[in-house]
Amino acid sequence: MAAAAQANGKYLIPFSSRLKEGRALAQDVWSIYNAANLPADCINLGQGYMNFAPPQWVKDAAEEALQTVAANHYSHPKGRLRLREAISNFYSPAFGKNLDVESEILVTSGANEGQYSVFTAFLEHGDEVIMFEPFFDQYLPSVTFNGGKPVYVPLHPPSKANLKATSNDWTIDYDELRRAITPRTKMIIVNTPHNPVGKVFSRKELEEIAALATEFNLLVMSDEVYDCLVFDGKEHIRFANLPGMWDRTVSVYSAGKAFAATGWRVGWLIGPPAIIQPTLAASTRIVFCSNSPLQEAAAAGLEQARDRNFFETQAKEYEERRNVLLNAFDKLGLTYTLPEGSYFVLLDISRLTWPDNYHFPSSIDGRGRDFKACWFIATEIGVSSIPVSEFYCEEHCHLGESFARFAFCKDLDTLRNAGERLQGLKKYLKE
Amino acid sequence: MAAAAQANGKYLIPFSSRLKEGRALAQDVWSIYNAANLPADCINLGQGYMNFAPPQWVKDAAEEALQTVAANHYSHPKGRLRLREAISNFYSPAFGKNLDVESEILVTSGANEGQYSVFTAFLEHGDEVIMFEPFFDQYLPSVTFNGGKPVYVPLHPPSKANLKATSNDWTIDYDELRRAITPRTKMIIVNTPHNPVGKVFSRKELEEIAALATEFNLLVMSDEVYDCLVFDGKEHIRFANLPGMWDRTVSVYSAGKAFAATGWRVGWLIGPPAIIQPTLAASTRIVFCSNSPLQEAAAAGLEQARDRNFFETQAKEYEERRNVLLNAFDKLGLTYTLPEGSYFVLLDISRLTWPDNYHFPSSIDGRGRDFKACWFIATEIGVSSIPVSEFYCEEHCHLGESFARFAFCKDLDTLRNAGERLQGLKKYLKE
Ligand SMILES: Cc1ncc(COP(=O)(O)O)c(C=O)c1O
Ligand SMILES: Cc1ncc(COP(=O)(O)O)c(C=O)c1O
Repeated sequence: MAAAAQANGKYLIPFSSRLKEGRALAQDVWSIYNAANLPADCINLGQGYMNFAPPQWVKDAAEEALQTVAANHYSHPKGRLRLREAISNFYSPAFGKNLDVESEILVTSGANEGQYSVFTAFLEHGDEVIMFEPFFDQYLPSVTFNGGKPVYVPLHPPSKANLKATSNDWTIDYDELRRAITPRTKMIIVNTPHNPVGKVFSRKELEEIAALATEFNLLVMSDEVYDCLVFDGKEHIRFANLPGMWDRTVSVYSAGKAFAATGWRVGWLIGPPAIIQPTLAASTRIVFCSNSPLQEAAAAGLEQARDRNFFETQAKEYEERRNVLLNAFDKLGLTYTLPEGSYFVLLDISRLTWPDNYHFPSSIDGRGRDFKACWFIATEIGVSSIPVSEFYCEEHCHLGESFARFAFCKDLDTLRNAGERLQGLKKYLKE
Repeated sequence: MAAAAQANGKYLIPFSSRLKEGRALAQDVWSIYNAANLPADCINLGQGYMNFAPPQWVKDAAEEALQTVAANHYSHPKGRLRLREAISNFYSPAFGKNLDVESEILVTSGANEGQYSVFTAFLEHGDEVIMFEPFFDQYLPSVTFNGGKPVYVPLHPPSKANLKATSNDWTIDYDELRRAITPRTKMIIVNTPHNPVGKVFSRKELEEIAALATEFNLLVMSDEVYDCLVFDGKEHIRFANLPGMWDRTVSVYSAGKAFAATGWRVGWLIGPPAIIQPTLAASTRIVFCSNSPLQEAAAAGLEQARDRNFFETQAKEYEERRNVLLNAFDKLGLTYTLPEGSYFVLLDISRLTWPDNYHFPSSIDGRGRDFKACWFIATEIGVSSIPVSEFYCEEHCHLGESFARFAFCKDLDTLRNAGERLQGLKKYLKE
């Protein structure tokens, strides 16, 4: 595509300089490890979407909505009232307050557009946004497009000696965090449960962050899209519930993650009116409103989830999926970070080797060792994953180079099959 | 909502200064004339959405999509291949070229998000964007949010003496247009068929604009969301088809307008790779991708439209709807602009009077005469419409003050009913 544009030597109309930052025009990791570039029968554990459908009873509500008139037309930019009411009913107990459907809830076109709208609503040119590495890759360009400056604070990986590391062993150095704060710091992004580490932040960790947010008057974006995917009896803590945090926190949720419907593009934000109102003003201009039929479906999902024990059952299913993959890694003798939430697991690929003359595509030239490892695993044994250094800034990308991210939001057979194929790596492992 | 936020005297976290421009936080016309503020049985001819459903055969495709796995999950940020192929097949003949699905088509979350993404991709801080007044109200804040500066050039209304005015009698003063161009002008927005005037620009008019676009190297956004709603045998001309214009034009379309499905939030852009590629980079960050099931439905719509003679039949239906409303205006003895396209008609309300002591809400204090007229019509006889001065910048809003916009995207019975109610205005007309 770029080739065609550059045929005439330049762009007739120059694009905005904002596209020169934040990796916006770079070939991203998703295109490099796209199915089209990999063996035809490659099992896709790279991308974070399910290979199963949303529950039938949730889809039924979408079909009913399609049979009405109103649910085929514009919704209120705040979101359909039925969905806002369902959100209020579902989350009010969790937030320990009665969430107001008019001023404390905003339906967005996926969590993604919700987060983008928060940046649009709050960032002034040059404002700094702190994000922990590794980070969900959309944060970076979403911040720079809105004039913000990303500031990176790494989660420190467990030591190599720790052969039974859990996501809990990825830690924040609070002095480092404090040093990252400047007079221009406006916002901090917290992501719990965490993509790609699977970390479920502890109350103590969140309290340390909260203390700094208060001290420096920061807006906190708490990305909790995996709130319903927490394992091993671990507790998900909502940042906004920490003492004093409600007024400065916007919490982010996703129907895509909650109901195995990533393509529905429905998400929601919860926060105080002083955060939701400007964000609504931004979102109204960006998308006007979110699609109506799938808002109705998401509403039905939340309305019935409790009676159906849906999220508990679903979390157990994901736990089982996770374990299939972890067993395969155990059998192979490779270490990994045991994830306590989300649907990702980080495999330590530092012991993986490949033939000296192995052919790698030019798209991964100059990238970390993990880019080669992921390519090798995908082409050689047919299981795709994503190199974790992509989720770090350039300066810190060595911290991610030892890891490949595998997504286990796939049915058990696929995961078992992948697990068997992965045994084929045994002969490429060094001691 | 604002009240709650301001209760503590200020926003804890200040919102971005970009919300202070472009009327972003102002109470917009849609909230003022919202059904909730009007009599319960008021007939809504204000907002531009249909009170009928999309065709069953298009909805069927959405239901089929819901029964698959893939169409419930993320689509490619460019759009689903099936939809891009349907767009290419449908529009290639109209554009007289084979539209490349990889580089010349971008599916967006409604036309709205597509337009926003073009601004994000191309505007540099301080770049000027020319728009003709009256304009679709989303343009203004979408431009300012992306650092652009709107520059307004009015379409001049027909003279009062012209009692049989058509949308063709709203004209551009080309000297005025030329004077509006500065070294900072980056883009010009053309909207044909036009909301709210109903004007279908003639080849000659578009050629005059094209000549200036070439002379000053401007990007042209041709908003053609009403391309399938053209009446009286008038021809819709695609701006990109004018000699030399393809390379600098992005054309904007909407499944919502095409298939009576405004709530599906699916639209598409067509243009050269050098425009589509940066816009894709923007859209990928803003929404990641558009919802999948309704992309499948839009694809089915375009695939079958020609065989079903769908757009021809639909345009005739809208023409009939238009005529019902126009007949009511004729009977009432009020003049209007006969629309040749879109689904809006501008009624000249300068002869309408109301009692001196009539009560108007404070939300319309200080606004044009048309704000009062629309309020009076809605509350007194139960038909809502939208004041046209809202679609002008402050400096020019007197040009719109004589008009109320009525939408005729409603079923015939509703329009007949509205037409009867409108006769109740007779006693309030001065000579
Ligand atoms: C941490 C995180 N936040 C936000 C999102 C975006 O969610 P959605 O698909 O609802 O836009 C994702 C999706 O992968 C994610 O992993
Ligand atoms: C001129 C014009 N452009 C764009 C749009 C937005 O269309 P969509 O609903 O597809 O976002 C509208 C909707 O009213 C419009 O009138």
